[in-house]
Amino acid sequence: MTNSPRVVDMTLRDGMHAVDHQFTPDQMAEIAGALDAADMDVVEVSHGDGMGGSSINYGMAAASTEEYLEAVAPQLSDTELSVLLLPGIGTVEELDMAADHGADICRIATHATEADISQDHFEYVKERGLEANGLLMLSHMATPETLLEQAQLMEEYGADAVYLMDSAGALLPGDVRERVSLLVDGLDIDVGFHAHNNLGLAVGNTLAALDEGAVTVDGCLRGLGAGSGNTQMEVLVGALDRAGYDVSPDLYGTMDAAEEVLLPMLDDDTMPELDNDSLMLGYAGVYSSFLRHARREGKRYGVDPRDILVELGEMEVVGGQEDLITDVAERLAEEQGNAVEADD
Amino acid sequence: MTNSPRVVDMTLRDGMHAVDHQFTPDQMAEIAGALDAADMDVVEVSHGDGMGGSSINYGMAAASTEEYLEAVAPQLSDTELSVLLLPGIGTVEELDMAADHGADICRIATHATEADISQDHFEYVKERGLEANGLLMLSHMATPETLLEQAQLMEEYGADAVYLMDSAGALLPGDVRERVSLLVDGLDIDVGFHAHNNLGLAVGNTLAALDEGAVTVDGCLRGLGAGSGNTQMEVLVGALDRAGYDVSPDLYGTMDAAEEVLLPMLDDDTMPELDNDSLMLGYAGVYSSFLRHARREGKRYGVDPRDILVELGEMEVVGGQEDLITDVAERLAEEQGNAVEADD
Repeated sequence: MTNSPRVVDMTLRDGMHAVDHQFTPDQMAEIAGALDAADMDVVEVSHGDGMGGSSINYGMAAASTEEYLEAVAPQLSDTELSVLLLPGIGTVEELDMAADHGADICRIATHATEADISQDHFEYVKERGLEANGLLMLSHMATPETLLEQAQLMEEYGADAVYLMDSAGALLPGDVRERVSLLVDGLDIDVGFHAHNNLGLAVGNTLAALDEGAVTVDGCLRGLGAGSGNTQMEVLVGALDRAGYDVSPDLYGTMDAAEEVLLPMLDDDTMPELDNDSLMLGYAGVYSSFLRHARREGKRYGVDPRDILVELGEMEVVGGQEDLITDVAERLAEEQGNAVEADD
Repeated sequence: MTNSPRVVDMTLRDGMHAVDHQFTPDQMAEIAGALDAADMDVVEVSHGDGMGGSSINYGMAAASTEEYLEAVAPQLSDTELSVLLLPGIGTVEELDMAADHGADICRIATHATEADISQDHFEYVKERGLEANGLLMLSHMATPETLLEQAQLMEEYGADAVYLMDSAGALLPGDVRERVSLLVDGLDIDVGFHAHNNLGLAVGNTLAALDEGAVTVDGCLRGLGAGSGNTQMEVLVGALDRAGYDVSPDLYGTMDAAEEVLLPMLDDDTMPELDNDSLMLGYAGVYSSFLRHARREGKRYGVDPRDILVELGEMEVVGGQEDLITDVAERLAEEQGNAVEADD
């Protein structure tokens, strides 16, 4: 257990999801400057889906990663700069560009059971002299034992730290404790935790992770982030202070960054909300992209879309298997004895 | 530990704070009907500050408690009806009225160290045949041992259960565990927990309380409630389901009550927010009424109002001691070497 966890701000990366990837380089520079002034340990800058994510498929960003890094890097004195890379989306060229623009850390993210696609990326990141962190996404979909195996693979590839990403906000504090403690015991490298707030547990789960030996944690100012948002950074810093941790980011500075700098840039409707949709995603433990499909098929088959999401969660359906949603809706309609509506 | 905690909905009582006590009797009836349909265990109906709270001092409600109870009681089949009484604000006449209108439970609330003012009230509630629950407010301001003594007093007076109220949202999960487990061990009656979300920990703290043996918990639809709001009820029900608890309220029914029934009644700006103000109240552990004074005196003495709040929290200042705020501001200004601005 550490008394001085490293605190990583995700506002300019996971927070990009909340603004449809539309922060301008100037806005990023201003936010990064405020975070640096608050002595944040690390800021991460990338499209929400990592470098190379700006596309029709994942949403076009307002600028290129290069433009963002050029704007942010000069704002940072002691705060380190991180970028995100998803194998299959980001490229070696972008990694080179990020290294040339002063990135200190590259975080390499894979699905919780697919660490084996990341070996080349870890090796290249280390070759370029950057710190390499591995992220296991949707970690609620793997058993603690599988997560440990996957984390050990990343350690083997050269990772300096491995993060459990609770991408759907589906873990309970007890789940977090079990998983983090297993990783802390089974790895020689640092363990990190990244929460989403779908079950209202982002701060509570982050405290639980630290309690079990995690040493690096993520958050976003004002709780930005995909879905219902990440751990609200200024609240996390306050809770860590209260809990007796000695963190680098200053509470007032972080609060000011959130409310004086970031908030005026946001529309009311861009604030992540813990509404029924995000609750159901956390409860069922499924991708947010399933919502739309579940609603459509629910209507078509006269089934509550929430039942479809729960069933998909139990089947551990992942992205790319959207066609299964129709099958599930049809089966539930039969089981529930619902008349199938005409194809309208 | 229970596997079937009693779940108490506060939307029509603590939630009244978020709407300036302006729910109409018709709105209350509609919300109560939806909660009854969702098999909620208990709904509490009163002015935010309890029966008799409707006043210039605490804010005028849209109707009298009697009108609210007349509207709500006919909507409830299996759901029990609770009212709140603060000694000094509510009267015996109102308690009689509530009993005559079908209240099953009366909750009697005192400051965490002032249980001794509640003896007559407990005795009268029991005499009228109602269940009597004791609430220790601002429980972060008392040591665990003091809380146990105070709870034992309420038990002696006839309480059927005692609740720890984290009124300022200032407790961390470890604080909750320590306090709840001490009460569970030291009392023969039920222990309950009521959270506020100022540090983002309402759901996490409620799970921690149940884990230590609390058997009854509070929440509000959409996270209404004073300050940054109570535990968000539909999220709590989802988290309890996921954690394997067998609760009476139905998840979908509770979600529908929140989003189909309550939400359309609310203005955007009535939704409690975890903003810097509510964060500071939880962080400092002080009354929300101090905010305004701290801002004013902070401006006057050139001191950050947050420093004033932290100082007041450390001094354990309570309501009625607002004049101390000026003294604190003046002292901090001297300590920080700030020039005192003219009285403008």
